[in-house]
Amino acid sequence: MQLGLVGLGKMGFNMRERVRAAGHEVVGYDRNAQVSDSASLADLVGKLAAPRVVWVMVPAGEPTRQTVAELGELLAEGDLVIDGGNSRYTDDKVNADLLAQKGVGYLDVGVSGGVWGKENGYGLMVGGDAEHVERALPIFDALRPEGPREEGFAHAGEVGAGHYAKMVHNGIEYGLMQAYAEGFELLDAASEVTDVPAVLKAWTRGTVVRSWLLDLLVKALEEDPGLAEITGYVEDSGEGRWTVEEAINHSVPAPVISAALFARFASRQTDSPAMKAVAALRNQFGGHAVHKAGPTSGSGDVS
Amino acid sequence: MQLGLVGLGKMGFNMRERVRAAGHEVVGYDRNAQVSDSASLADLVGKLAAPRVVWVMVPAGEPTRQTVAELGELLAEGDLVIDGGNSRYTDDKVNADLLAQKGVGYLDVGVSGGVWGKENGYGLMVGGDAEHVERALPIFDALRPEGPREEGFAHAGEVGAGHYAKMVHNGIEYGLMQAYAEGFELLDAASEVTDVPAVLKAWTRGTVVRSWLLDLLVKALEEDPGLAEITGYVEDSGEGRWTVEEAINHSVPAPVISAALFARFASRQTDSPAMKAVAALRNQFGGHAVHKAGPTSGSGDVS
Amino acid sequence: MQLGLVGLGKMGFNMRERVRAAGHEVVGYDRNAQVSDSASLADLVGKLAAPRVVWVMVPAGEPTRQTVAELGELLAEGDLVIDGGNSRYTDDKVNADLLAQKGVGYLDVGVSGGVWGKENGYGLMVGGDAEHVERALPIFDALRPEGPREEGFAHAGEVGAGHYAKMVHNGIEYGLMQAYAEGFELLDAASEVTDVPAVLKAWTRGTVVRSWLLDLLVKALEEDPGLAEITGYVEDSGEGRWTVEEAINHSVPAPVISAALFARFASRQTDSPAMKAVAALRNQFGGHAVHKAGPTSGSGDVS
Amino acid sequence: MQLGLVGLGKMGFNMRERVRAAGHEVVGYDRNAQVSDSASLADLVGKLAAPRVVWVMVPAGEPTRQTVAELGELLAEGDLVIDGGNSRYTDDKVNADLLAQKGVGYLDVGVSGGVWGKENGYGLMVGGDAEHVERALPIFDALRPEGPREEGFAHAGEVGAGHYAKMVHNGIEYGLMQAYAEGFELLDAASEVTDVPAVLKAWTRGTVVRSWLLDLLVKALEEDPGLAEITGYVEDSGEGRWTVEEAINHSVPAPVISAALFARFASRQTDSPAMKAVAALRNQFGGHAVHKAGPTSGSGDVS
Repeated sequence: MQLGLVGLGKMGFNMRERVRAAGHEVVGYDRNAQVSDSASLADLVGKLAAPRVVWVMVPAGEPTRQTVAELGELLAEGDLVIDGGNSRYTDDKVNADLLAQKGVGYLDVGVSGGVWGKENGYGLMVGGDAEHVERALPIFDALRPEGPREEGFAHAGEVGAGHYAKMVHNGIEYGLMQAYAEGFELLDAASEVTDVPAVLKAWTRGTVVRSWLLDLLVKALEEDPGLAEITGYVEDSGEGRWTVEEAINHSVPAPVISAALFARFASRQTDSPAMKAVAALRNQFGGHAVHKAGPTSGSGDVS
Repeated sequence: MQLGLVGLGKMGFNMRERVRAAGHEVVGYDRNAQVSDSASLADLVGKLAAPRVVWVMVPAGEPTRQTVAELGELLAEGDLVIDGGNSRYTDDKVNADLLAQKGVGYLDVGVSGGVWGKENGYGLMVGGDAEHVERALPIFDALRPEGPREEGFAHAGEVGAGHYAKMVHNGIEYGLMQAYAEGFELLDAASEVTDVPAVLKAWTRGTVVRSWLLDLLVKALEEDPGLAEITGYVEDSGEGRWTVEEAINHSVPAPVISAALFARFASRQTDSPAMKAVAALRNQFGGHAVHKAGPTSGSGDVS
Repeated sequence: MQLGLVGLGKMGFNMRERVRAAGHEVVGYDRNAQVSDSASLADLVGKLAAPRVVWVMVPAGEPTRQTVAELGELLAEGDLVIDGGNSRYTDDKVNADLLAQKGVGYLDVGVSGGVWGKENGYGLMVGGDAEHVERALPIFDALRPEGPREEGFAHAGEVGAGHYAKMVHNGIEYGLMQAYAEGFELLDAASEVTDVPAVLKAWTRGTVVRSWLLDLLVKALEEDPGLAEITGYVEDSGEGRWTVEEAINHSVPAPVISAALFARFASRQTDSPAMKAVAALRNQFGGHAVHKAGPTSGSGDVS
Repeated sequence: MQLGLVGLGKMGFNMRERVRAAGHEVVGYDRNAQVSDSASLADLVGKLAAPRVVWVMVPAGEPTRQTVAELGELLAEGDLVIDGGNSRYTDDKVNADLLAQKGVGYLDVGVSGGVWGKENGYGLMVGGDAEHVERALPIFDALRPEGPREEGFAHAGEVGAGHYAKMVHNGIEYGLMQAYAEGFELLDAASEVTDVPAVLKAWTRGTVVRSWLLDLLVKALEEDPGLAEITGYVEDSGEGRWTVEEAINHSVPAPVISAALFARFASRQTDSPAMKAVAALRNQFGGHAVHKAGPTSGSGDVS
């Protein structure tokens, strides 16, 4: 079938390749003319035969909302817009309602798999009407991994359910990464007596902790032994934050996911106001103690 | 080769099967005569030709220490004892030194894979001398998963390194499980609009969070939809505790692993003294407030 | 001076007493006619001489927003509305702008002290214009504790700053309470050999942990030894949640405050979906292990 | 009465002053001759009339154990040793048993109050036999704050109970400090619109969060506005670690105290191996994404 694809960055570019490799026709649009198949959104829409399906793969938030709104102006009744970006699920109902005024359908799709998706396929969680899902199914089948459809694809529910599932997916991802990271640091603390890379590699088959993320950690350590060329500065995209906020909304305890999120916040601080306060307090009640050595010297360890 | 195997419970029983299936001779001993191949530890030792290799697979702590000590009495110079249980790594040096007095070698092995190991193979992390590792390699090769040796087996380091690695492995495991669990609860909180089992299954291929544990969670939900037949009471074995203690010893922050451990503690409390104290405090400063409804009624929300 | 006071619940009722005791005239209104000094909001406004000051002390959210809106209809240019409830600070700008259309001023006040405020005075954090603060200062002086003004009162900043400060105050409060609570549970775990109430009481003077909350915990234990008559079910008002959400907005790590919040969520669950998932996972990889005792029995401790 | 005092550091020096001010005779010993009243432990013992009471106030661990052992050699039946340092409670039984062989009594005392204790008195938690407590009561009364004895002093239980209580006290202290610190950072994040020092000072009377630690934080901010002269590098003494370990021993959830401990660990890391691992993982699955701006540019936000 024919697909319009808006946004040909790291994700969209690869997805165009995979969908084309499955035998579909893809007309892409990106502001970067070098990768774009069309001159403008209007040009892209003009190149598609009705009823059109246009997949939006641009940054979440304002860029996505704006692109959807522009498509609403350009598309016609019976067309379908798919937001495959990392939008907050609360945006979906707004987008869907906007497009519904024009008779344009809407699906929200959580897409996971990163840069490996082109080769391995992407895990897909879709929200929206069953008839819209049905219409786009050939594209979903092209994007998802080979194997049974239900192992890489789900119609999660109504509009918003796809991005809700992706949000939770990413929250879990934060927790998983932090769990491996803490374990790595603990192995690393014993690296004088432990062959850390060998242990991690030995975990990749047979063990309870085997996973794709572990495979990637092994690969990272092979490419950069001791992770010497990287610093522990970790960005976070919105979805970890939304997951914790959603946990709060639902009164769901989320100690692990929040701890993983906060560890990222802390990793980006050059100095912590909180820890300055703790240091100041210790100073206040304990004094500028000089800890003298020796068994019968006074203890400066006051509290 | 020939192997003595002490302890034929859930793990040892399956391991005997797998080692035998690889063509080795296994003489097992268990207090449960119905599964035992020998009448006593002495009988087991008597049935093995020197130099013997005896694998101990009994509960960690006193049972393992006692079994190792008894074997020390029964075995002879040149024999080798392997502790494959979940012993604390600090036990290993003690065991090794004890056996060394008799000229008996010692290896500590972390074994992961659970009841699936019989079929899939077990991930193995080994601590001890290279010559001892070499001697037992046919057994390790029988137990580990098929594929490259280093993807399911590591000689982690000197005595203790195997159990240290297993301890960290289990600490990570706690964190991974809790991450999935929090995500599951958050999906479940939206289960009126989300097809939770379908979403989890869709994550098993292509996504960043795909893993063996996730496969098991999908399987558990297929066997017991909504996990209706299970309660949220979760035991912990020692290794999660040791991981946090070791993190403290090494000044390694472990917010995720400790949160996972504490969630298990809390899951087993019918009432929490801590939360009673919090409730008592709120009562003290806020009074026995009755929250009246309506816009111009007084607020009982005091603090 | 003259004060209108809307909402005579647990907090408002006591505040009326304290303001009157300081020699001011208070006209109160509550839906509960038995405590009300006026028949309606309109009646209350009618009983005050312009320029009026009306303090709103009703539940946060819709009740407060609605009361402010109604007052906006009833009041006149030059009047002043004070929201002393636990409103989210983001409501304040909206309320202030609404009233400003009528030339009515607005202050937001965080009020702390609970049921003890009547006797001890209330800690006050105020947001808004300096001229409005100045106008209401006699009321603030009546409500705050005796002693230097700055030790129980602050003009925190512009509109919203009072409730922002109160939000953070309550977030800290969650953390403090949980810290004492965890310590209490740890003492309690050793209560066979430790005189828990005596230890807590001994902490109330001289120690680093002495505080008003600790005094209240001692009092609670005197009134209900062992906290036998209370269960560990703990509600949370919105401010703990908002604090964590605000921490996320500002990329501020808040592991302690969030842990305290999640402990309350967990305290209200009869069963935890998350821990059911963890239990299910353990079951999946470890089997229905029966842990047999004895040194040479097989270990069921699989992972 | 007469008291021997070993260790005249930050704590011991001040305590000697306070005990003397109460009219008692104190013979001090410290390796630092400039502050010492005696030339050696033996000299100190020689200067005291039997039955002697010797208070040990040296660093916890080996220094204390060694001093107690040396005193065991020098003292005689009927004498009494008091360990007032921050020893781990598990040391106390060992010390007591050692001294009991000579007929020398033993008390363990948790002492809180820091450098302010000289002026305000010290909070005291004592473990040991009632007769020994009775004998040392005049010294305890001299050291504790004025007011009712039970508000600054407790006979917590048998040997070890004093240091157990002090351990828990310090664990709570960690949690309290971190709670204030997180709140401070959150206020600080809004410092453009909030008068942070004024708010903190306003909390010192009337509010729920008022405490001695808060008073100290206000003082610290007055002495060093914005805490500009201090970095967020925070040491930890052993007692926070022991508290978490003890929580683990008793299966007591301690999310807040452990979070406070881990925040200190993290504050001392120049780079975090764990966060390097997280960064490496993000890199692996997300690629070296360059996030391009603009609404219809491709999203680099991959996961």
